[in-house]
Amino acid sequence: MALSTQPYKGARDFYPEDKRIQKYMFGVLRSAVEKYGYEEYDAPILESLDLYLAKTGEEIVNEQTYAFEDRGGRKVAIRPEMTPTVSRMVAAKRQELAYPLRWYSIPNLWRYERPQRGRLREHWQLNVDIFGLAGVEAEHEVISVVDGILQAFHAKRSMYTIKLNSRKFTDYILREYIGFDEVQAYSVAKLIDRMHKMDRADFIVQLDALCTPSQREQGAVEQLQDVLQAQRFTALPAAVQQHPSLAQIRFLIELLEESGIDNVVFDATLMRGFDYYTDVVFEVFDNHPDNNRSLFGGGRYDGLVGLFGVEPVPTVGFGMGDVTLQNFLEIHELLPKLHPETHIYVVPVGDVFKQLQKPLAELRASGLNVALDTTGRKIGAQIQTAEKKGIHYVMVIGEQEIADGRYNLKNLQTGVEEKHGLSRIVTIATDYRHVDETEDEDI
Amino acid sequence: MALSTQPYKGARDFYPEDKRIQKYMFGVLRSAVEKYGYEEYDAPILESLDLYLAKTGEEIVNEQTYAFEDRGGRKVAIRPEMTPTVSRMVAAKRQELAYPLRWYSIPNLWRYERPQRGRLREHWQLNVDIFGLAGVEAEHEVISVVDGILQAFHAKRSMYTIKLNSRKFTDYILREYIGFDEVQAYSVAKLIDRMHKMDRADFIVQLDALCTPSQREQGAVEQLQDVLQAQRFTALPAAVQQHPSLAQIRFLIELLEESGIDNVVFDATLMRGFDYYTDVVFEVFDNHPDNNRSLFGGGRYDGLVGLFGVEPVPTVGFGMGDVTLQNFLEIHELLPKLHPETHIYVVPVGDVFKQLQKPLAELRASGLNVALDTTGRKIGAQIQTAEKKGIHYVMVIGEQEIADGRYNLKNLQTGVEEKHGLSRIVTIATDYRHVDETEDEDI
Repeated sequence: MALSTQPYKGARDFYPEDKRIQKYMFGVLRSAVEKYGYEEYDAPILESLDLYLAKTGEEIVNEQTYAFEDRGGRKVAIRPEMTPTVSRMVAAKRQELAYPLRWYSIPNLWRYERPQRGRLREHWQLNVDIFGLAGVEAEHEVISVVDGILQAFHAKRSMYTIKLNSRKFTDYILREYIGFDEVQAYSVAKLIDRMHKMDRADFIVQLDALCTPSQREQGAVEQLQDVLQAQRFTALPAAVQQHPSLAQIRFLIELLEESGIDNVVFDATLMRGFDYYTDVVFEVFDNHPDNNRSLFGGGRYDGLVGLFGVEPVPTVGFGMGDVTLQNFLEIHELLPKLHPETHIYVVPVGDVFKQLQKPLAELRASGLNVALDTTGRKIGAQIQTAEKKGIHYVMVIGEQEIADGRYNLKNLQTGVEEKHGLSRIVTIATDYRHVDETEDEDI
Repeated sequence: MALSTQPYKGARDFYPEDKRIQKYMFGVLRSAVEKYGYEEYDAPILESLDLYLAKTGEEIVNEQTYAFEDRGGRKVAIRPEMTPTVSRMVAAKRQELAYPLRWYSIPNLWRYERPQRGRLREHWQLNVDIFGLAGVEAEHEVISVVDGILQAFHAKRSMYTIKLNSRKFTDYILREYIGFDEVQAYSVAKLIDRMHKMDRADFIVQLDALCTPSQREQGAVEQLQDVLQAQRFTALPAAVQQHPSLAQIRFLIELLEESGIDNVVFDATLMRGFDYYTDVVFEVFDNHPDNNRSLFGGGRYDGLVGLFGVEPVPTVGFGMGDVTLQNFLEIHELLPKLHPETHIYVVPVGDVFKQLQKPLAELRASGLNVALDTTGRKIGAQIQTAEKKGIHYVMVIGEQEIADGRYNLKNLQTGVEEKHGLSRIVTIATDYRHVDETEDEDI
């Protein structure tokens, strides 16, 4: 029986035209985060399963992780997220590293879940973290980086909204203001996390079910709803407006506004899935009517590095998945037209393979990427191959051209064919690339 | 108990200084192969286990593969090599693709083996393949690409030797010339593959044990040794010199020599581990006395795409591992000094965080990567952080500098400190990078 040609379910093959999009996106990501002084790191895709048992959300470890025993009996997992790994790496060199540490990575991550729009079993995720800053300047920078990335893709700020909340505020509301115990508070937070995916009546029924009779009597459901529905700080119940975590969120929004980032709002319903966040959390939402959803987010997690038996390090970070990012870019028509890396396709006429090596070497040494057809097919068929590959220039070369040192350069886009020496050909093909790159910049 | 900070055994964490080396190496690889018109592809790290059962060497599938059952009962493997995957991808679009197809990828691969020098459980491997060419021009090109890569790293041809053999020649020798049956031939080929790791007497004992009494009597062991020991074509027994596979190897060596690649030799002992090769095989050896070993190799495998139930596609390719490549570059002192991506480290004096945002944005918009220290530590401590990170320039900025629009730029390498406007600072920091990159080119 023949082998299947399908990739593993929920994972993607990247043919060159797909890989080109990924490379473009990753290139923009790298350049945008490096602007702020971030340095790239990486780590093995396999980790000890223990690493995820401590602080990742339960659902993820129990049901969604690719875990197995290796041949030596070690329990291992294919990483479902990068945060535990980067915390491990910082902990391993806790004393040697120079803080503040600005690190980023674009790992592939695996989760066993039903593949759906924006969620695949394998995806790549930009992870950006700053270690060693306890002050809100860290949140300001990390959210500026998020904004800087989207700006680098030429997004307008009207296309997305950055929502802020604070775990400290949520804790205060659930534990002190409403009076839930720890177990209740955890369940209610998980419920709030899902509330935008259920209808309102259903949310209230489930919330009600989590309350004790006396909480119910004291109006816990209504009280909590008043907090969650507030669209502005001033719409919050007066009793909670003075909590210090809110002052911090306000200050942060003000700082961001001064940097021109005017699409940041407070949202008391923002929970974020992971259990390790300790303070400010944020999430970026797509404002497009056909893609009105959370794109990615992050927050402060000051406790993770300390799990490795070293002194904790205050940390703020975020993860940005490639699938949701690409959906965002596509729906807002922000993906530029991308060209193959190959500049020139050479079609030989007659038995000139040996003589061709020198001019080919010269073109390549001048920085051009040049593919040679050696199928021996008819000239027309070879040119069609170049067209199918999207290559811009073709050179049909026979003995005469090599003898003269002058070559036909045909632009497959315009159909224009000109005869030039090699150095002029290098200039034309190089110029074309530059012009084109500049055009992309203007989008 | 605290969590371990160690990465999984046999796999590497890449701290920014390690990642920088990898990025440099991968950048050179990409640029060198794209010169020949190769396009990058990628695929999921998990594949169906079936994919490897057909044609990969037995040892690898049975003992060395990370295989497990997913939660849906599918048998999956973390890819131990990329060739089956790329063959699958070509087969999936057999009719749509434009041949010749030039593809490359730099996947990470996993093998369960005892970690040792040059062999780790996780490594990255450049895979370069050309699909759709039956002629020896394909081998010429692929070996030219190998050479082009090493030249791009500024290696001299005296540093490495490219060894060639042909599976067709090996088959002819073992089956027809010596007269082994299929099972014997397979075992003898595997023995020859290991012969340079054992002493000569041991090799002869094991070879002898594989022969039938009549083969032994007819001098099979000596006959085979005569072939394997030949250092030149003319040193081969006269009876085998005329085999057509040798004419092809000779022609290939001649073609490569004409392209300046004069370090290619024939070696009848070259086997290559994988079972799927069908014709020419090659391997690159390090000539350094302290690292005299095989670096990487490849060959022609015309049968793999056909295993997926489509018409076969002639293919030549190779895989080049990052660990052996880095060892080679290090032992020959070919790795350049690499700098962090961050150009300027900004040390604020006093409460200038808000006012700093504008000049920082201006520097970043001009293409510079600028990190800001917001720890509030003493100036000296902040500058030390910049030094520890290897960043070249520091700007100490207080209210006066922002008011004047003139800033101190200190070169941490030379100690020179100058006062300039922002645009001049951009020029200096940019120029420095360019000068430096040019210097690297000259190594």
